[in-house]
Amino acid sequence: MPGTRLPGPRLQPRDLSRAPEEEQDLLLAAAYVSDAQYNRNVPFKTSPQAIRLYYFYNHWTMQGATYFFICVDLSLALFEEPALFPLPFLVTSIAELLCLTAFFGRLVHFANVTPQMVFWKDTKNICIMVTIVLTLIDLITYGSLKAANIHSVRWSRALRPVFLINFPESRQIRRTFRSIRNALPDILYVFLLFMFSVLIFSLMGLKLFGDRGLKTVEGSPYFTNILEIMFELYVLVTTANSPDVMMPAYEFNWWYSLYFITYTIINTYIFMSVFLAVVYNNYRKHLKNEICKLAHLKRYKMIEAFNILKVKVGTEFVVKEAQWKRLAKVVVPDISTSHLELLLRISDEGQKGHVDKTNFLRLADLLNIQVVTINIKRHPLETWMPRVYQSSASLLVQKMVRHRIFVWVYDVIILINAIFIALDEKIPFISDAEWLFLSLYIIEILLKLYTYEPRAYFGRKQFWNWFDTLIIIAALLATVANTTIQSARKYSSQQVLDMILILRILRLLRVIVSIQRFRVIVTTLINIGPTMLTFGGLVLVVYYVFAIIGMEAFHGKVRFFDPNFTAPDALVCGNPALKDSAFARDRYCRNNFNDLASSLVVLMELTVVNQWHILADGFALVTHQAAKLYFIGFHVVGVILVVNIFIAFILEAFFVAYSLEKSEVETAIEKKIQELGVGVQEEDVQDGKLTDNMDAKDSGFSGDGEDNKREALKGLYFRIASRKYRTVDTLLQQMFESEIAPEDEGPSLDEILSFSSSDMYPKNPNFENSA
Amino acid sequence: MPGTRLPGPRLQPRDLSRAPEEEQDLLLAAAYVSDAQYNRNVPFKTSPQAIRLYYFYNHWTMQGATYFFICVDLSLALFEEPALFPLPFLVTSIAELLCLTAFFGRLVHFANVTPQMVFWKDTKNICIMVTIVLTLIDLITYGSLKAANIHSVRWSRALRPVFLINFPESRQIRRTFRSIRNALPDILYVFLLFMFSVLIFSLMGLKLFGDRGLKTVEGSPYFTNILEIMFELYVLVTTANSPDVMMPAYEFNWWYSLYFITYTIINTYIFMSVFLAVVYNNYRKHLKNEICKLAHLKRYKMIEAFNILKVKVGTEFVVKEAQWKRLAKVVVPDISTSHLELLLRISDEGQKGHVDKTNFLRLADLLNIQVVTINIKRHPLETWMPRVYQSSASLLVQKMVRHRIFVWVYDVIILINAIFIALDEKIPFISDAEWLFLSLYIIEILLKLYTYEPRAYFGRKQFWNWFDTLIIIAALLATVANTTIQSARKYSSQQVLDMILILRILRLLRVIVSIQRFRVIVTTLINIGPTMLTFGGLVLVVYYVFAIIGMEAFHGKVRFFDPNFTAPDALVCGNPALKDSAFARDRYCRNNFNDLASSLVVLMELTVVNQWHILADGFALVTHQAAKLYFIGFHVVGVILVVNIFIAFILEAFFVAYSLEKSEVETAIEKKIQELGVGVQEEDVQDGKLTDNMDAKDSGFSGDGEDNKREALKGLYFRIASRKYRTVDTLLQQMFESEIAPEDEGPSLDEILSFSSSDMYPKNPNFENSA
Repeated sequence: MPGTRLPGPRLQPRDLSRAPEEEQDLLLAAAYVSDAQYNRNVPFKTSPQAIRLYYFYNHWTMQGATYFFICVDLSLALFEEPALFPLPFLVTSIAELLCLTAFFGRLVHFANVTPQMVFWKDTKNICIMVTIVLTLIDLITYGSLKAANIHSVRWSRALRPVFLINFPESRQIRRTFRSIRNALPDILYVFLLFMFSVLIFSLMGLKLFGDRGLKTVEGSPYFTNILEIMFELYVLVTTANSPDVMMPAYEFNWWYSLYFITYTIINTYIFMSVFLAVVYNNYRKHLKNEICKLAHLKRYKMIEAFNILKVKVGTEFVVKEAQWKRLAKVVVPDISTSHLELLLRISDEGQKGHVDKTNFLRLADLLNIQVVTINIKRHPLETWMPRVYQSSASLLVQKMVRHRIFVWVYDVIILINAIFIALDEKIPFISDAEWLFLSLYIIEILLKLYTYEPRAYFGRKQFWNWFDTLIIIAALLATVANTTIQSARKYSSQQVLDMILILRILRLLRVIVSIQRFRVIVTTLINIGPTMLTFGGLVLVVYYVFAIIGMEAFHGKVRFFDPNFTAPDALVCGNPALKDSAFARDRYCRNNFNDLASSLVVLMELTVVNQWHILADGFALVTHQAAKLYFIGFHVVGVILVVNIFIAFILEAFFVAYSLEKSEVETAIEKKIQELGVGVQEEDVQDGKLTDNMDAKDSGFSGDGEDNKREALKGLYFRIASRKYRTVDTLLQQMFESEIAPEDEGPSLDEILSFSSSDMYPKNPNFENSA
Repeated sequence: MPGTRLPGPRLQPRDLSRAPEEEQDLLLAAAYVSDAQYNRNVPFKTSPQAIRLYYFYNHWTMQGATYFFICVDLSLALFEEPALFPLPFLVTSIAELLCLTAFFGRLVHFANVTPQMVFWKDTKNICIMVTIVLTLIDLITYGSLKAANIHSVRWSRALRPVFLINFPESRQIRRTFRSIRNALPDILYVFLLFMFSVLIFSLMGLKLFGDRGLKTVEGSPYFTNILEIMFELYVLVTTANSPDVMMPAYEFNWWYSLYFITYTIINTYIFMSVFLAVVYNNYRKHLKNEICKLAHLKRYKMIEAFNILKVKVGTEFVVKEAQWKRLAKVVVPDISTSHLELLLRISDEGQKGHVDKTNFLRLADLLNIQVVTINIKRHPLETWMPRVYQSSASLLVQKMVRHRIFVWVYDVIILINAIFIALDEKIPFISDAEWLFLSLYIIEILLKLYTYEPRAYFGRKQFWNWFDTLIIIAALLATVANTTIQSARKYSSQQVLDMILILRILRLLRVIVSIQRFRVIVTTLINIGPTMLTFGGLVLVVYYVFAIIGMEAFHGKVRFFDPNFTAPDALVCGNPALKDSAFARDRYCRNNFNDLASSLVVLMELTVVNQWHILADGFALVTHQAAKLYFIGFHVVGVILVVNIFIAFILEAFFVAYSLEKSEVETAIEKKIQELGVGVQEEDVQDGKLTDNMDAKDSGFSGDGEDNKREALKGLYFRIASRKYRTVDTLLQQMFESEIAPEDEGPSLDEILSFSSSDMYPKNPNFENSA
């Protein structure tokens, strides 16, 4: 077969340059299909040289290296002054230079792949270049000033997240940023109105309470300075100083409580909800728009690939079977023959020896569907010792394990375990019981492995089975390790003990699996997980920038002393300015900006919002009142924008999950796979029904008397990702794709790229009505 | 004309019983149309006697009386022990008996209107009866125990909101309650999972920190008791004790902060968002379902009315013009002849002398459309002294006032005013300036009244004009009053001064009107206002029940002393149990349950959530640790349910407002009105363009040479409620209605009433896609 000799992207460039024209076409088409499969949107040059470079650009080692250097660059903040682990400036600056070189290399690589026009029009590339130059300038000036013993500010460190955002791989993070940017004009107007309302209330507060001679609990004058009032009222919006800010006025006259209640209703409840509404509305609009764009781009790329490979048969253009197979082999070099055969059967239903356009366009989706080879022969033990495994005693054990009661018994054991954990461990009886529970759990896993096919039990998406086993094994290892250390040296390691404790308690989570309703909620949450990492990226960027600024502005101003250390300074965090402040009284000394780790914890506390005014007051006391602007700025960015977009994301994800309960969305491909009888639902594998099903189908095949090809498919099944496991993105994209008519060539590339959020997206009644 | 002699519902029953059969039919049909117009869903008996009673039942005096008695009943809590204004038990119990009698009377009235079967199947009626009986039992036992000098609990007071919820008029409040009830099963599962997660983390916390010998800032042991840990962690979900609860562990070891950060992410951010998602999803589902039901019921009633009045003309059933006019006159007795004529022209386009079914079904909507009689003759001044008003000086003034710069000048004046307000008032120059500003504002209003037609200027929906004028007049009156009192008695009343201050500052709000983007947001908010009152009802019910329970449980335990009173008890709120507690230290003594007003303020503070654990701890100290359950219960009901449903409501309202910007929804009626050229947009009136438009149209009419009927319409215009002014409900209902085909008889009454939320509602692409 010629296909087997085809040079995959793994081959040396030498071989490729010798390949005939047809091979180059194939490689180009494969690049398009691969882009469609992974939703990559890089316009690349179509010269053989550029395609080869493009394959290399997309190789996982290159992408991995880029992320590695980004991580190194970001984590440099741990080692630079003010450092958690101090390293000399020379070391960190060399590391940074290395990173910059790597980024620059990646950029040059990209410039060789993409057309020049596109490269220079792309703001992402400009951003990276500008940041590299700025960082270099900063490094040189800081270094030379340091040599001259002048202290200056490493301001370019705040720019480091630019690399994380702007490399083409971080599409998701950029999308979230775009979402926020789109919402900004709307938010700005609401924010101005909100600030206007705060101003009006501040004026009212000043006039109503300013001349009353009221005192706060701390004895300072109450509501006398307009700027202070505005800050207090802004804090009240975040509820952090309620009801304290109200108490002096309320004590003076009951009616004044109405002023604060009105303020809270208008500003905390109504305005904050409006912020959420604006962010959410923009998020939705933007999400749909972007996903619609993705769907069209995918279609566009598949059509390009088709146009390269098409030949005319009869009246229509098609792709020959041999060509199609070679294409698939280039895109997924390690595809198995039986898998390829199966895909072909779906694409070329009538077995006419060629694939028509409609079916060709589906290739990218077909390649994205998980394929699972299921051993339909037998349980391994059955193969090794069939008589024992099939003996009545063994069958009884298997039946027992499969029974519902088996699950219930273990749920009860877990609950008893929970009670034992809550009791005091010092009693020997209870600490011994731990060994009993551990062995019971190990017996459970062994019994399950005896009954179910081990490879099915540890399937790729059997989250809970993996969870169970890992927790138990880890607990076993840790307990054994601890006991060994303890008996040998009469000393137990704190870290090991803590780990054992946490593992022991995490085991209790298994109860959730038994309750159907809980499982649904948890599965949805786990399902959202990967996309939540996008927010991890967003939060990382925001936190990093604010942490760097915070460290430059506040490091060393507040110091933390060990609780046992009784220096007179310890009570005021080493700064006399904090004397009698709420900051020192609440012992917040450890909430400082003296290193990256502490800064991130402080920013987390500011995100949670409570007591943030005390932190802000504290840092304003040790520096200047203007420091409060830093904290207000973080509140606007970190809470009003980031937290709201997070809530919007969770809301949307749950709405999609709810809508799926009502209306099942099945794409054409899935239907076809089901029709061919080679689909397997996730749930079947989970519930252990799989093997039985397999057997039934297997015999069905043999009795069918159909052609031999079907026989070849035996043992290979498509696993259609269960609806539960799909992300919002995947679902939305499938909906949009099923809306695009097969003959629809779609808008031109330029039109797609210039889609604005005001364009209409295709209507999908299933999705829209279910909301 | 026979129509003029028709007995409207205002006539005495005596006249009605003498009316012929036809008159009775008309009355029945009118009852149906009126119900459709106001969306009433009371199934009434169709006997002449019952219809007469039904008219009386719906009369505004009867409805007003019911609300009056509900208010009296609820406000009794102000006068009963523990009272704000104490009254003897005899007085309050007689008042309560009176209320109960009124409620019972209303119920008997209702029983005579509605069929017996329906009456007894309706849980609302059963609820009211049971509550009346329970209240009577409670009154009697409490009274007799009191007579025997035994103190007991007036538990039935917590049942009083039942009357507010269950009378048929409070449809909106009941709908919100149903919304919550529908969401309960879903919420329950999330809540259980959430509590499970809190439990797991509590166990972990106990094991990780319990044996470390850590101390809190107050010196008490840290994380040693599982129940206390659970409470602390529950409080952490509400963020009220962050970061204090973390500090001891964080000071001990940096890594322990990860425990709290993980906990916050999972429980505060994810779980609280899931609660919002569940509540919001149910709210939306439920809202659409209920409104769809309303639309179908309206259609059903209009068909009933049509069937009563129809006569056969040619091949189709129609309603004769005379009959139609008499019907309209019964439904709206004070409708003007020209208004009626206009409605007829819309309903009977071809002037065939009868109204067909499709047009008849629209009658209820037609009657709901606002009609405005606009004086298209001239400004009153023009009529009185045409020469002066049309003189060039007068025209110049008018042109000036209409000019943009006029608005800008006054915006600048307002801003200068704002600066003056912020300055110290004690300087004579500044307090004199106040008179200048006041006169400037008055001149502005007078100029506007001179330029614009006064009746258009004070139109029913000219919110901002009314606002302006009222604020200025009130400020003028108050300032004059204050000056008079001051100069006469050398003393200024605190209340009057406060009022002047607030009025003076509220004037600044006018700046909002000048900025278009602000106006849109504010108009949406004002527009939501009436529906927000529904939440007022919901909040009132929840607060009232909790306030009554709180007063029974906690009254007198915490006492407030005047700040100037220096009793030793004052520092511990009169209760030694509070010694050294955070409650006493923060001077929260006024946050008590000693009367209804204070209780409501405490509950408001609990809704805002911050520091609620200090309040809970305080009341637990003076009673029992179990008191914390009351506060946790209020958090679940008041915050997780009520606040989330409020946010859901605001989100939905804003989404509908946003969707309207994109897709205009026009109903068939509006189109027809526009076609006839008699529609007036709200905006026209506001911007003063109205008169010009009117003139143009007027001349158009004369030149038209059409029949004289059109001439009669002169000066009368339909005001189509501007889209901005519509509520979510109205909009949704119109959408559903425009979806029901005119020939669609709809499902049967039973089917409509048994609609469940899982039923599909009609699809409306306009609405659905815009989201």
